[in-house]
Amino acid sequence: MSAIQFSVTARDGASAARTGSLVTPHGTIPTPIFMPVGTQATVKAMTPDELLQVGAKVILGNTYHLYLRPGHELVRRLGGLHEFMQWHGPILTDSGGFQVFSLGELRRITEEGVKFQSHIDGSYHFISPETSIAIQEALGSDIMMCFDECPPSPGDFEYVRRSLEMTTRWARRCKEAKTRADQALFGIVQGGIFPELRRRSMDELREIGFDGYALGGVSVGEEKERMLDVMRFSAPFFPDDKPRYVMGIGTPEDLIEGIHAGYDMFDCVMPTRNARNGMLFTSFGRVNIKRGEYLEDPGPLDPECDCYVCRTFSRAYLRHLFRSGEILSSRLNTLHNLHYYLKLMEQARGAIAEGRFLDFRREFYAKRERNTYLS
Amino acid sequence: MSAIQFSVTARDGASAARTGSLVTPHGTIPTPIFMPVGTQATVKAMTPDELLQVGAKVILGNTYHLYLRPGHELVRRLGGLHEFMQWHGPILTDSGGFQVFSLGELRRITEEGVKFQSHIDGSYHFISPETSIAIQEALGSDIMMCFDECPPSPGDFEYVRRSLEMTTRWARRCKEAKTRADQALFGIVQGGIFPELRRRSMDELREIGFDGYALGGVSVGEEKERMLDVMRFSAPFFPDDKPRYVMGIGTPEDLIEGIHAGYDMFDCVMPTRNARNGMLFTSFGRVNIKRGEYLEDPGPLDPECDCYVCRTFSRAYLRHLFRSGEILSSRLNTLHNLHYYLKLMEQARGAIAEGRFLDFRREFYAKRERNTYLS
Repeated sequence: MSAIQFSVTARDGASAARTGSLVTPHGTIPTPIFMPVGTQATVKAMTPDELLQVGAKVILGNTYHLYLRPGHELVRRLGGLHEFMQWHGPILTDSGGFQVFSLGELRRITEEGVKFQSHIDGSYHFISPETSIAIQEALGSDIMMCFDECPPSPGDFEYVRRSLEMTTRWARRCKEAKTRADQALFGIVQGGIFPELRRRSMDELREIGFDGYALGGVSVGEEKERMLDVMRFSAPFFPDDKPRYVMGIGTPEDLIEGIHAGYDMFDCVMPTRNARNGMLFTSFGRVNIKRGEYLEDPGPLDPECDCYVCRTFSRAYLRHLFRSGEILSSRLNTLHNLHYYLKLMEQARGAIAEGRFLDFRREFYAKRERNTYLS
Repeated sequence: MSAIQFSVTARDGASAARTGSLVTPHGTIPTPIFMPVGTQATVKAMTPDELLQVGAKVILGNTYHLYLRPGHELVRRLGGLHEFMQWHGPILTDSGGFQVFSLGELRRITEEGVKFQSHIDGSYHFISPETSIAIQEALGSDIMMCFDECPPSPGDFEYVRRSLEMTTRWARRCKEAKTRADQALFGIVQGGIFPELRRRSMDELREIGFDGYALGGVSVGEEKERMLDVMRFSAPFFPDDKPRYVMGIGTPEDLIEGIHAGYDMFDCVMPTRNARNGMLFTSFGRVNIKRGEYLEDPGPLDPECDCYVCRTFSRAYLRHLFRSGEILSSRLNTLHNLHYYLKLMEQARGAIAEGRFLDFRREFYAKRERNTYLS
């Protein structure tokens, strides 16, 4: 018996896009969905109340960061991550693999696991498939991810093949290490840019059997087109009856293409990180709020948006806050960007349910072309 | 006809403490009141909605900062400061005098006004009593402050005397420069630590006639006891029928003493700035949230506080956010500290109205002594 239940609720028909319902111990997630990233037990600049307000249905926690600070055992003693950060909706935790591999010279991979140095204080640590699961169980997320190796991209075929073989062995160890019945576990498909390796990775993971499957390694170093390629050619390898998750992407356009290809779940730091850098997403494309053209602009950031920021403040004010380095700038920009991403998912779900996803996708791009002056 | 109406609504009887009602074009302010500081058209880390939520009745805007960025003319063209920042309650603007004098080597004072260099880009500027009023009229605050000289403290008697004479002349020029009927203007009492100079400053200002009077120069360089002394001995010089405002202080204890001495209005960056540094005000005294003793503390920051932060999060979580440098730390800490300050004012008003302010003051200090382990 899985800790989650997934069912496809509608299919677009003209594309692979689909809507679904993912029931977790902390609530039901409608898919396709975008998951805001809450690295250090907080989605940066947001309260849990605001996450609900912008329509977040599930958030992502980073195992690597929480393991280092404040420590997973502390979080467990304080009631788990939901209780610690007072987010009572579903949480997915990554495995720490991606962050650890991103450390570069600071880590060393063996069959057993990965030795690495903390980015905070340089102290030495070791994470294996077993410890990754133990940490995620202490955090108490609804959905855990297998500890995988994320090879450099585009990698050499032989290296990627050997890496994915180890990722398969690690996935089996993760499943065996899992003890809690109230947490689901997703496998991560690797295989770089090579269709036959992606297919093989998927087949091996399905044989082990997971509650859902994720496409890994598409957010690292890939050129945009190649990443979209991998996403598209890999989609048919995924089982139809389990949630399909593309890790670490992306732009609004990436999400539309991912949904088009048949994926259900996405996460990315882009809406939150870009917000803090003054890059805002609107119906008409990107707005760089620091630009001089907004100096005296009394209009809302996005006239089509009904978020608190667009209902309340002018572009001129948002520009002033950004240029003055005010915390409120990060807050308002984040609130808007997350609202935009989550509204886009809601609109996509509606379009799929009504069998007009291709029209929706066409309109989405058309608006952007008409309003390039805003980009 | 004044733009504001002030009436004393209750007197403590056993002390000079009093409650009042200050009617302004943007709403009625109950006094005693604390005014959160919104330097750059935002109370740092707070939305206007949250200011209402914590009980703010009036906020302070800084003329010097807004003049430099985004510029008062821009704010005027965008509908004034209320509209620009979407705070629809009363606003008091300072005159820019204090900030300009704080620039030290970067400014030069003459009878005409002050030449100074911007702290942002080093550009040269000039503010006189007339330009200060013009800027404050462009900002459109409910209450403007006279441009004054804020002499170094404790200063030489002769220097302070000459300075306050110029402050009087500047106050007259401010009143003459004022053109808008929907803004009030307060005079600022100077005179350093010298009772006879404070009295003389007050007498001269009263002769000119203002809508309210403020005690200036008590937040600069004074030792605590001396500052309290100046505040206490100056109170009787103030007219009874106008609002009395102590500028730039202070701690919760300072406010209690100010109210005790008969003052009505206070402002200070302390609750907001200290919040961002992890210093929190509670019923039991100060809490330095970064301390190790809170590492696994599951309790609320202040068990007697009913703010969102104390109702929702643990000390352990607040400590984690602070140590992780998260924006949410600044937000939650600011929300709590402002709530604490404004609740304290509300409680003081209640105590005065019921003639038990001295008991209230005694309990306020007693709680702090009993709980020194938290300080």
